[in-house]
Amino acid sequence: MAERVLITGAHGFIGRHVARACAAAGCTVTGLGHGSWARAEWRQWGLSEWHAADITLESLLTYGGKPDAVIHCAGSGSVGFSISSPYQDFQRTVDTTAAVLEFVRLSVPRARVALPSSASVYGNAARMPLSEQTPCQPVSPYGVHKLVAEWLCDDYASNFGVRVSVVRLFSVYGTGLRKQLLWDACHKASQDMHVFSGTGNETRDWIHVEDAAKLLLLATEHADDTCPVVNGGTGVQVTVREVLDELYRALGRGGSPAFSGVVREGDPLHLQADTGRIHAWGWRPRVDLRDGLRDYARWFAEGAP
Amino acid sequence: MAERVLITGAHGFIGRHVARACAAAGCTVTGLGHGSWARAEWRQWGLSEWHAADITLESLLTYGGKPDAVIHCAGSGSVGFSISSPYQDFQRTVDTTAAVLEFVRLSVPRARVALPSSASVYGNAARMPLSEQTPCQPVSPYGVHKLVAEWLCDDYASNFGVRVSVVRLFSVYGTGLRKQLLWDACHKASQDMHVFSGTGNETRDWIHVEDAAKLLLLATEHADDTCPVVNGGTGVQVTVREVLDELYRALGRGGSPAFSGVVREGDPLHLQADTGRIHAWGWRPRVDLRDGLRDYARWFAEGAP
Repeated sequence: MAERVLITGAHGFIGRHVARACAAAGCTVTGLGHGSWARAEWRQWGLSEWHAADITLESLLTYGGKPDAVIHCAGSGSVGFSISSPYQDFQRTVDTTAAVLEFVRLSVPRARVALPSSASVYGNAARMPLSEQTPCQPVSPYGVHKLVAEWLCDDYASNFGVRVSVVRLFSVYGTGLRKQLLWDACHKASQDMHVFSGTGNETRDWIHVEDAAKLLLLATEHADDTCPVVNGGTGVQVTVREVLDELYRALGRGGSPAFSGVVREGDPLHLQADTGRIHAWGWRPRVDLRDGLRDYARWFAEGAP
Repeated sequence: MAERVLITGAHGFIGRHVARACAAAGCTVTGLGHGSWARAEWRQWGLSEWHAADITLESLLTYGGKPDAVIHCAGSGSVGFSISSPYQDFQRTVDTTAAVLEFVRLSVPRARVALPSSASVYGNAARMPLSEQTPCQPVSPYGVHKLVAEWLCDDYASNFGVRVSVVRLFSVYGTGLRKQLLWDACHKASQDMHVFSGTGNETRDWIHVEDAAKLLLLATEHADDTCPVVNGGTGVQVTVREVLDELYRALGRGGSPAFSGVVREGDPLHLQADTGRIHAWGWRPRVDLRDGLRDYARWFAEGAP
């Protein structure tokens, strides 16, 4: 188990849960990235240090210290943002990954790096579940940039011996997530708006952020110069309709979700992870989807603190 | 034919020949990039404007004007550099490509972009000739970064309608080339050193820089939102031994090249372009290899001015 972990993007949705998971595992956690954060708050998330700065080679060399492991959670987290601002998306995802890899090569060559990537690298694949060998044909700039980040990891692993691993996360959800389907649904429901895009029969592979965080910590242990890539999903397909029905029940406000039938172009209809590799790592999801959705609804009802 | 062409990296080996080819074709040429260059000299290469600056979104917006076409010659040009300085290589090749594409998207969305890429994106392929559909498995950071640049082009084409094309150049040579085999050979021969690495039986597909420049100009005409990719080679494999024998004859200093037999790891043994696509574009090489080598030897003998 790593002693000193550097988490980029520790202020973000996934980053802060990773920080907490690392601290719970006994690590000393340094965070670096964007975000205005009170000391009391970042300490509560398990950080020993927090540096608000762009992720650049300079900031990493200045604030990164000598970590045993780096979990690079910084980066864009939105397909929509990548379409409205592709260059900024590139900078957030690709440039920061290049900087992290160079920091490790120059400063802490034995550190183990984990990159949270995304199922979006697969694009609109026809067959489920998606194994890690499925050819990657990303559709959005977001997916392209994540795949590019993976390639840089593989390059630094094979050419420079940097120890790295990649986790392609599926639909990560949990308290603190202020975007995407569940967030929108809570808002809509609170305004008695109940019509959602799509048919409701689309499926996703939902992974709770606490499970994702533990998987990323585990990924640092498997990081090596072959740059292993694993799917971060549960292997279970659940329809959007089922998830929203469950969320509505948890919200307890009445109403029920309806679907416009208008499918958003570019969105894959189905996503399901082949979990053979992460099962071989010994990882299993711990948070039941129903429990996770109840927690989410409660958090939203409390004002999304 | 484009009227206003912006050439990034116009001070470089390929860039300056592209500038001359564009000027000869009647274009008004603006150059942007690194390099200390006297006005008389850049005017001689066909430029109407030269701006010495990093290639960034800011410098492009400031100095790039409103070109009808952009030929992005800036970027790293050396596998060795990419291994000693991978992060700088990334910045020179990948970051500049992202900036050029964003500049076009924001400022000149109808401009046609040509990207000089490299046969290094193929890696060590087993079968020759290399068609553009050969799976890309680059070995060096240089090759990875070129492939990433291609992907960004394809992404901007498919998601934002940017008109772009990619030319995977093989072994470009010609006067002004101050690195690689021919340059080293001229130097060695002048010092009566005649042993070269490898067996001499390695083959390359040699393309004269003036032919490459015309191909890049032609590529701007074929740029569209499908991001066509073509090989930039002659389709003819010539052994390193034959090329050096010819160069030695042209140098006329006596001696003959010998080979150590020690093969440099990571270097492909053979490279040969499948030229079906560029032939379909109507492109043919004009400079005979023997003539090109004679010119090169003469230029070197004149002190490589």
